[in-house]
Amino acid sequence: MSLLVVGSVAFDSVETPFGKRDKMLGGSASHFSLSASYFTDVRVVGVVGGDFGEEEKKVFVEHSINTDDLERVENGKTFRWRGRYDYDLNTAHTLDTQLNVFADFKPKLSQESKRCRLVFLGNIQPDLQREVRGQVMDAELVALDTMNLWISTTRDSLIETIKGVDVMIINDAEVRQLVDEPNLIRAAHKILGMGPNALIVKRGEYGAALFTPDSYFAIPAYPLESVFDPTGAGDTFAGGFMGYLSSQASIDEPAMRRAMIFGSVMASFNVEEFGTDRVRRLTYPEINDRFRAFKRMTHFEEILFESAANTIKQ
Amino acid sequence: MSLLVVGSVAFDSVETPFGKRDKMLGGSASHFSLSASYFTDVRVVGVVGGDFGEEEKKVFVEHSINTDDLERVENGKTFRWRGRYDYDLNTAHTLDTQLNVFADFKPKLSQESKRCRLVFLGNIQPDLQREVRGQVMDAELVALDTMNLWISTTRDSLIETIKGVDVMIINDAEVRQLVDEPNLIRAAHKILGMGPNALIVKRGEYGAALFTPDSYFAIPAYPLESVFDPTGAGDTFAGGFMGYLSSQASIDEPAMRRAMIFGSVMASFNVEEFGTDRVRRLTYPEINDRFRAFKRMTHFEEILFESAANTIKQ
Repeated sequence: MSLLVVGSVAFDSVETPFGKRDKMLGGSASHFSLSASYFTDVRVVGVVGGDFGEEEKKVFVEHSINTDDLERVENGKTFRWRGRYDYDLNTAHTLDTQLNVFADFKPKLSQESKRCRLVFLGNIQPDLQREVRGQVMDAELVALDTMNLWISTTRDSLIETIKGVDVMIINDAEVRQLVDEPNLIRAAHKILGMGPNALIVKRGEYGAALFTPDSYFAIPAYPLESVFDPTGAGDTFAGGFMGYLSSQASIDEPAMRRAMIFGSVMASFNVEEFGTDRVRRLTYPEINDRFRAFKRMTHFEEILFESAANTIKQ
Repeated sequence: MSLLVVGSVAFDSVETPFGKRDKMLGGSASHFSLSASYFTDVRVVGVVGGDFGEEEKKVFVEHSINTDDLERVENGKTFRWRGRYDYDLNTAHTLDTQLNVFADFKPKLSQESKRCRLVFLGNIQPDLQREVRGQVMDAELVALDTMNLWISTTRDSLIETIKGVDVMIINDAEVRQLVDEPNLIRAAHKILGMGPNALIVKRGEYGAALFTPDSYFAIPAYPLESVFDPTGAGDTFAGGFMGYLSSQASIDEPAMRRAMIFGSVMASFNVEEFGTDRVRRLTYPEINDRFRAFKRMTHFEEILFESAANTIKQ
């Protein structure tokens, strides 16, 4: 029972109104695998440069994340991203991107990686995602993330990739952009019509929703009084979601709903501190306590309206 | 067990990408009382002009809404609002507002109105809201709506009014504007600190949230493939919420949570057709079916994470 993720491993530099940090471990595959590691065995496919040191590697090792397929280009530099968040923390302003070794990234999967039960295609160029997807044809579930850049620049390739996956995990602006439809519900059904059996829409502070062809499930975000650094929240959500699913013998809708909660739980911890600081030292009681909090904040009794007024007014 | 609403009764003219309608029954008190009438006895305090005819009055009569305190100024004209919605339907663009008889509206409460158990102060000038509030000191629960105009032009008076109410029902932009705080959770607690025991935040397509000093409850909106006319959705929500509460012997948090669902149910019907068209012909099976749909779309099992991986990784 293991989970494969393909994506970026990066050094992030982040400025928020609350502080500033340089060269933190970041990237989609890092946030994803760290989050998933609390629930299952994870393997990372990615690339780093010679500047990727013991300090960064330790985070993977300590969480038993398999890095056999994390390629190391000794004479290259690791992907770097620098960004700033303003006071509302909703939008990341990219100040600088240096793709470095990531520019020529060609995912290489070992035999062990090809045999993973679940696969997450992190936000990389859709041709590469499809190439990986073609190598994991026995996977029980393949999920996909993408971003506005690929929707606008490599749309046809992306749609081809979407046809071949089971679950798509993107944010609400991307849903609307992908099918050019402002109504989220109609947009979601258009995407399901392309191939996936399930679409998960990340809505930031408003939570997340799960669409299948014949069901809808929506949850709020965990109410945080302070969001410190939102970088990686989406990948941390996906890691919790896929990691939890990977731990379950049967991947049915009840399991996917609980996976949505665990994904939200992990994302809520991620934004509490810079980079991976909070998630890397989580405990299971902390995770389960916050799962319970989601139940408390969404529960209501199913008591239909049957009063005297009802009888009178019918 | 009755419910009082003070607010506007208006003629609305609305343009949406789907069509156009003139001189429909509108206004906060109309949408509110129609929605609430499915759950409880409602009394309206408001003002109309000589142009308010039998056609419009019939909607109130047919839903047993008491209009004894709906003042009629024979030589005046009813409040008129004309607005347009663009394709995304999220923002109303006001094209024309004619206050007419509403400009000099002084709410007059009969003895029966003063004895109502629950009171909703619809979106009118906060001095007037406070004057009404002063006349219903025996009410078990008084709720308040407001808008961006009063927050920016009569802020001090509004804050004085907020001090005297039990529940505040406003949208998320208004929450942030009122206390100048971008984080909704912190903003909500600041408002609770002003006096109310509960704050309900309407989030449009994202649903609604209930804040109390020590709890949080959040629900999604009903997923609609087509929103036809969003005018009055907020007041219809408030009507369902307060109407349901009014039908309950005990107004505790479980009742408030169910009331949030009934409010959302009513609002979801309201936006399906122009004006009050859909809500005025609702049936109890339709209302209860949609209540059940809310349960289906929010339910998940509370199963904590306790797998083999858990034991291994601890």
